[in-house]
Amino acid sequence: MAITVVGSVAYDTIETPAGRRERCLGGAATHFSLAASFFTDVRVIAVVGEDFGPRQEAIFHNRHIDTQGIERAPGKSFFWEGSYLDNLNEAQTRQTDLNVFASFEPKIPDAYRDSEFLFLANIDPVLQRRVREAMPDVKLVAGDTMNYWIKDHRAALLEVLKGLDILLINDTEARMLAGNNNLVQAARAVMAMGPQSLVIKHGEYGATLFHKADSLTGAAETFKVPALPLEVVVDPTGAGDSFAGGFFGYLASQKEHTAAVYRKAMFYGSVMGSFAVERFGTERIAQLSRKEVDERFKQFIELTHLD
Amino acid sequence: MAITVVGSVAYDTIETPAGRRERCLGGAATHFSLAASFFTDVRVIAVVGEDFGPRQEAIFHNRHIDTQGIERAPGKSFFWEGSYLDNLNEAQTRQTDLNVFASFEPKIPDAYRDSEFLFLANIDPVLQRRVREAMPDVKLVAGDTMNYWIKDHRAALLEVLKGLDILLINDTEARMLAGNNNLVQAARAVMAMGPQSLVIKHGEYGATLFHKADSLTGAAETFKVPALPLEVVVDPTGAGDSFAGGFFGYLASQKEHTAAVYRKAMFYGSVMGSFAVERFGTERIAQLSRKEVDERFKQFIELTHLD
Repeated sequence: MAITVVGSVAYDTIETPAGRRERCLGGAATHFSLAASFFTDVRVIAVVGEDFGPRQEAIFHNRHIDTQGIERAPGKSFFWEGSYLDNLNEAQTRQTDLNVFASFEPKIPDAYRDSEFLFLANIDPVLQRRVREAMPDVKLVAGDTMNYWIKDHRAALLEVLKGLDILLINDTEARMLAGNNNLVQAARAVMAMGPQSLVIKHGEYGATLFHKADSLTGAAETFKVPALPLEVVVDPTGAGDSFAGGFFGYLASQKEHTAAVYRKAMFYGSVMGSFAVERFGTERIAQLSRKEVDERFKQFIELTHLD
Repeated sequence: MAITVVGSVAYDTIETPAGRRERCLGGAATHFSLAASFFTDVRVIAVVGEDFGPRQEAIFHNRHIDTQGIERAPGKSFFWEGSYLDNLNEAQTRQTDLNVFASFEPKIPDAYRDSEFLFLANIDPVLQRRVREAMPDVKLVAGDTMNYWIKDHRAALLEVLKGLDILLINDTEARMLAGNNNLVQAARAVMAMGPQSLVIKHGEYGATLFHKADSLTGAAETFKVPALPLEVVVDPTGAGDSFAGGFFGYLASQKEHTAAVYRKAMFYGSVMGSFAVERFGTERIAQLSRKEVDERFKQFIELTHLD
């Protein structure tokens, strides 16, 4: 079943201990949709500038991603420059140019209207809410956010959270959003803001899934997936979005959303995150095969299961 | 099969967001042996002062731990005072008084000589090596160390590593010992110093087991176990030593040391670490039942396994 994702399609200039790339294709919606495309149909809503050409579009089309919702606007695409030279776990932002993104008004193509799954990638919560309200009939809505919106746009963000089934954020964001340093307590506080499920991403330490206590059984669910220990991390950019793409893409490919399906989704999330960091930008996942995904899934079982 | 452990038996004054305890029983050998005692016979080599009385000794004896190797010396026992007020993941040391530990000369009781397992808890590597050499016939030797020995006593520590089968350290220590920030590369470098196996502990994020590549199959083994997400962490003191006790205690209880047995040992390590932090000092593990250990082991399977 199809996912519509709204978010940024951008150019990134990235410096890491492994080297430097100028203006490679990036953005949360890009990384998310490439990862999710291994599991289900994906449709993108974004805005790009005149610098977005056939070569960039081909990266989406090669993975059969629907790009009719990627609007072309006069000017330049969103641009971000960051460095991981000091710390591979956290980018130091050198430059952010919103460009055409500054006046982004998401429009939903008619052909996207039957999407049953919606992913609100990390953008202004006012836009996230607008897209959510324009697609009231979706079956499952997941989303992401970041420290900037949590700190300075809290009211708008809280409105978005009310309409989310699943929120995916990292440790720092969860602690900041809840105002609580204990992750279990923070998770409960965040779920009280709306989402039934919360995925907290721990970077190189994997991720934890929390489900609200079941109203019938009273049981809350917690599930842990590690990250793959990697000898070379070339570029962490997009790892979290790729995790979200693998996680939500797998959910969208399944008819029933049992606890067991959520667990498998966590594994596919970590699988896609592990590929994302192996090369710069989208280089690894754009060239990936489904066979590699399945093999790495098995590697994760080996890494975590007793038998 | 019995484990002999050499290390500190001490008094700790601990302050955490949950409160303060004055002079509670602590020390690496204490936490290790209490945790290991749920799986096998444990014998302790340590030195204490005149302040160590029947009440402290009873904590060992209630868990059937052999204390004839705990030497009494004139003066006071090793004392440590630390605070976790700023950061539950790292203690801030306020005071360390070596006291009787300053002139500790480990002596091995004859009754300990048939121990097949030896654990060298975190003490001066010169003493670790002396005990290792005095027990040449043990079947498996594991050990721990810390940043102080890695930085300022490297030559002595490297001698110890040559005689270790398994080293258990945390992320920071592994990176410092290897001079490499990538944990997979650091693990390989540390194993090249001696140990066949390396357990890197990640605090609230669990632990990773690395085995050297098998000389026959060429396959290296990596295994991940999470920590239990806990709503209340009362006192992290001794969590790492309790992990080591659960891990090595389980190994010592098994006849064969297959990859599957090492994996289960990692789970028991994390199980014992999760109990340790639930109350101050030894309070939780000293009162624990084997039934609780088994139940929590099942909880870890629930937390990590797909089926």
